[in-house]
Amino acid sequence: MDVITPDRLSLNTATVKEQWNLRECIDGCARHGFGGIAPWRDKLHEMGVEEAARAIKDNGLGVSGLCRGGWYTAEGALTDAVIDDNKRAVDEAVTIGAECLVMVVGGLPEGSKDIQGARGIVTEGLAKTLDYARTVDMKIAIEPLHPMYAGDRAVVNTLRHALDICDQLGAGIGVAADVYHIWWDPELKDQLVRAGRDRLMAFHLCDWLVPTRDLLTDRGMMGDGVIDLKGIRSDVEAQGFSGLNEVEIFSALNWWKRDADDVMQTIIERARDVC
Amino acid sequence: MDVITPDRLSLNTATVKEQWNLRECIDGCARHGFGGIAPWRDKLHEMGVEEAARAIKDNGLGVSGLCRGGWYTAEGALTDAVIDDNKRAVDEAVTIGAECLVMVVGGLPEGSKDIQGARGIVTEGLAKTLDYARTVDMKIAIEPLHPMYAGDRAVVNTLRHALDICDQLGAGIGVAADVYHIWWDPELKDQLVRAGRDRLMAFHLCDWLVPTRDLLTDRGMMGDGVIDLKGIRSDVEAQGFSGLNEVEIFSALNWWKRDADDVMQTIIERARDVC
Repeated sequence: MDVITPDRLSLNTATVKEQWNLRECIDGCARHGFGGIAPWRDKLHEMGVEEAARAIKDNGLGVSGLCRGGWYTAEGALTDAVIDDNKRAVDEAVTIGAECLVMVVGGLPEGSKDIQGARGIVTEGLAKTLDYARTVDMKIAIEPLHPMYAGDRAVVNTLRHALDICDQLGAGIGVAADVYHIWWDPELKDQLVRAGRDRLMAFHLCDWLVPTRDLLTDRGMMGDGVIDLKGIRSDVEAQGFSGLNEVEIFSALNWWKRDADDVMQTIIERARDVC
Repeated sequence: MDVITPDRLSLNTATVKEQWNLRECIDGCARHGFGGIAPWRDKLHEMGVEEAARAIKDNGLGVSGLCRGGWYTAEGALTDAVIDDNKRAVDEAVTIGAECLVMVVGGLPEGSKDIQGARGIVTEGLAKTLDYARTVDMKIAIEPLHPMYAGDRAVVNTLRHALDICDQLGAGIGVAADVYHIWWDPELKDQLVRAGRDRLMAFHLCDWLVPTRDLLTDRGMMGDGVIDLKGIRSDVEAQGFSGLNEVEIFSALNWWKRDADDVMQTIIERARDVC
């Protein structure tokens, strides 16, 4: 397995969301020799989609994914507003040349305890977005989120479940495998094999801290936690995945407080040494 | 499905751990008409096992489980000390007439990232404890913990995985199904059916709060969260489970600060109305 060099890294903009806007992220990626970037839509809209697309291209960066589409349960039932917003997300992903549109599918609707119902809404929404995405040749990547987000963020929580949905919906849809969400899964390797090259559309790195002090904003830098990062990357690459290694760290307590260039340098070192 | 009356309830002593010692828990269960109790070993040792057994019996309480055995990874490899402590836990469970010994199997050993290795240690440890438990006719109930505890508390995180271990080890071992840990699982119903009457040894109630402010001590009272409690109880009882409904709420931010008799009364009302 090759050591991860900076050109094999992609910066998910959430990692430095408190320090840098998208232009600064693009400049930072170029300055540190990263191969790509993965913008969040709020930062993309702030900069302007067309302008961002030009800056990304001018700096020779790839786009490992656009974060994020989905959230199909936001208004309870599946509404035109939600479907339309997902179409716009697909268009934006096309404009910036993203490898895929990453989907955080949404949690339980407000006041609901019907997780099966929510999963039905999500599957229907993904089907509609996929129909559109196929017409513009954009791949849709379901990101199963850790089960601790089932209530409020995503009711798809395992690779198995995500791949069941992919089986149902057909070509053009796959998964974004983020170690934070899937490292604990006893079926991890089997489901990565099941996904295979065509459906492994993104690979995200960070680490699981012990203890974890906050459910949302206490992710660790690679090497500071308990995830077998080399082992998982090996299993992912064994399927033929050759995309960038995207680093996505939500860290209100640590990395969001640091100088962003130091964060970038740390990512490079850790990716080289512990992933 | 019958409404849960107080005599169908069991108090897990963790629910009022900050307010009551075991004697007060036993008296409280009797005073509020609970059918049973589920002591933690620290409170049991504090009171004395024999004395607790007498008090529980004198008050006509059942024991839905003893919390807890397991923690096989505590010393890295499986040591005699860990095995012996689990034997003592089995003996204590027998002494107090528990329905089962509940197993929290342990997380990753200190400094380890080898979750498969940890799972091997756990399975070996469970096999040894089960060998002994069979000689004294005590049932062993693996409690799969929520995946957010895979690092530091339990590397068995789904009913599927727990039942795979049960299949491997044979008679006398089953699962403790706690809604907090399993409610999100898309395979929940299928795995409850797979467990069946013989392997469903305990059923624990509480709720998942949105937002959850702490990974360990922010469980909700039934009805305050997003879990479909009636639905899960229905699926559990459909397998023939007829044990007590054990209430286990870790709540440093709320219920541990309240008068324990008020907590007991709230449990009775919520069990009747929302479970």
